[in-house]
Amino acid sequence: MKLLTKTSISLALSAALIATAGYAASQTASSSNAGVAARHAQMQMVAYNIGMLGAVAKGEVEFDAEMVNSAATNLKMLASMDTASLWLDGTAQGEVDGSRAKAEIWSDRAGFIGKFKQMEDAAAGLVDVASLEDLRAGMGPLGGSCKACHETYRGPKN
Amino acid sequence: MKLLTKTSISLALSAALIATAGYAASQTASSSNAGVAARHAQMQMVAYNIGMLGAVAKGEVEFDAEMVNSAATNLKMLASMDTASLWLDGTAQGEVDGSRAKAEIWSDRAGFIGKFKQMEDAAAGLVDVASLEDLRAGMGPLGGSCKACHETYRGPKN
Repeated sequence: MKLLTKTSISLALSAALIATAGYAASQTASSSNAGVAARHAQMQMVAYNIGMLGAVAKGEVEFDAEMVNSAATNLKMLASMDTASLWLDGTAQGEVDGSRAKAEIWSDRAGFIGKFKQMEDAAAGLVDVASLEDLRAGMGPLGGSCKACHETYRGPKN
Repeated sequence: MKLLTKTSISLALSAALIATAGYAASQTASSSNAGVAARHAQMQMVAYNIGMLGAVAKGEVEFDAEMVNSAATNLKMLASMDTASLWLDGTAQGEVDGSRAKAEIWSDRAGFIGKFKQMEDAAAGLVDVASLEDLRAGMGPLGGSCKACHETYRGPKN
């Protein structure tokens, strides 16, 4: 995730606007706030791709270099997206339904963004791995990036 | 979206496996099938970023080149992801809950993949636009790519 350099952007894109800006919430949206629902969607895609890598690492699915490369590349892209507009003020846990975002996301934005970079680097390390052994070695840093972020920036279940 | 070149991948990743492979479905998942929920998540992120571009194009938000570039780059990445594993056999509308995928996705896979390429190209055309006028000009092809795909490959609401 990149760091917004212009304050005007986050100011212009108020949460209220985003909630109605051409975005049709599905019946199963995880929050009435479109930004919160969109960041959950991002995490869902992250979990899906990590699930694929995990299934191979655990031996549940045969190692296939192309599949591993695809999942790792997807993850790298998901981690590198500029999603700053999804984390507007007023969308912490308790401030809007569905959110588990801790206040530390806003008080330590650089640290939070660093966790996405950690995930991006871990995913990059899995792009083009040639063996199951290499995949397994790379799963540690990847899982570590999930854990590091969730422990510091994600609140308890709602 | 890339085209899978190895049949082994889609065979190995059965829908049943994906549904349990380290993937924790949220309470608000749009389908009990993790692949279907993940493709909805992808579309939700697509809709969010298009919503941002649309808000600017409509004049609801002031034009900001950095914000437009970010949303367009996100869209380009979303469209270019290899999501072949999300579209396994047996996940068409009526075959699994929450799906609106028409049979044409499987009978005309090349055409379906071509629509993602159309979205990717339209998004690429919006990366680094320097003016509101250029943004507005590029929204037509982008909206056209949504419409073209939905008309052919998306079924009615469930």
